[in-house]
Amino acid sequence: MSFLELAKKRYSVRSYLDKPVEKEKLLQVLEAARIAPSAVNKQPWHFIVVTDKIIKNKIAETYPRDWFKTVPAVIVVCGDHSKSWKRNDGKDHCDIDVAIAIDHMTLAATDLGLGTCWVCAFDAKQCHKALELPENLEVVALLPIGYPADTAPESKKRMELSEIVSWEKY
Amino acid sequence: MSFLELAKKRYSVRSYLDKPVEKEKLLQVLEAARIAPSAVNKQPWHFIVVTDKIIKNKIAETYPRDWFKTVPAVIVVCGDHSKSWKRNDGKDHCDIDVAIAIDHMTLAATDLGLGTCWVCAFDAKQCHKALELPENLEVVALLPIGYPADTAPESKKRMELSEIVSWEKY
Repeated sequence: MSFLELAKKRYSVRSYLDKPVEKEKLLQVLEAARIAPSAVNKQPWHFIVVTDKIIKNKIAETYPRDWFKTVPAVIVVCGDHSKSWKRNDGKDHCDIDVAIAIDHMTLAATDLGLGTCWVCAFDAKQCHKALELPENLEVVALLPIGYPADTAPESKKRMELSEIVSWEKY
Repeated sequence: MSFLELAKKRYSVRSYLDKPVEKEKLLQVLEAARIAPSAVNKQPWHFIVVTDKIIKNKIAETYPRDWFKTVPAVIVVCGDHSKSWKRNDGKDHCDIDVAIAIDHMTLAATDLGLGTCWVCAFDAKQCHKALELPENLEVVALLPIGYPADTAPESKKRMELSEIVSWEKY
């Protein structure tokens, strides 16, 4: 499968089979995050893998959607602002680096027959508190992961290349 | 090639052959960015493909490295803050979304035998000015692209999984 085929295959899975994810597959997904590039190789990330029902329910309170309560595993993806690279104009590259790691995980999961969904519209402060995380960590996204119970949409709704690309100058 | 193999193959290329990139390949790389996911599908990005020597030199002034002056093409990757999704606590997802698109491009390029390098340590304000970009666009990264003239490093220097992953709780 070419990379483009893989990227087209990935979609936001919001319905999962009641089937646990094998630890070996979770480790492969995490390995994809581990080897991701980051600014100045700071690797400013931490991943909390949650399969325990009680902890999952605590997390689900920060993103109250029925489908989310049924996911077999959630990777809580944190950025570490004490490690992330800041450019000399002050720009913190934490979000950028964490996004690369998450992107790698979604693609590795797709490649392994698993589904994921970037969850950004959750209550990040409440989640931080519920998991009793240290100050330096920010929960950037929740990544549910499991075997899809739905099917991929026929196509992706995206702008055309002509709308997002300029040649030579804006 | 599995996704993990592809991700391991990607590295920061800082030496390029004096050989232009075929437009068909550039289009495939841009297509990988086009289909990238983004928060609430806002697609808050714009890509400026630069192969013209005069414009490349203007950009190189914002990142004065000898190797950078010799790259056959540069994709100037912009985030569009007028389009990006902001969570109800104010968090702007522009950096996250743009990083996904760039990650897709680096992986698609690798898959096509091309090399890239995330350039973040440039003068973003100077670059914005040099290209006379509108206020809503922020240059997030420069992405040189071309055929590698070097070879991949033997391994990636990364923390171990045990250092970046917690099971169930932090």
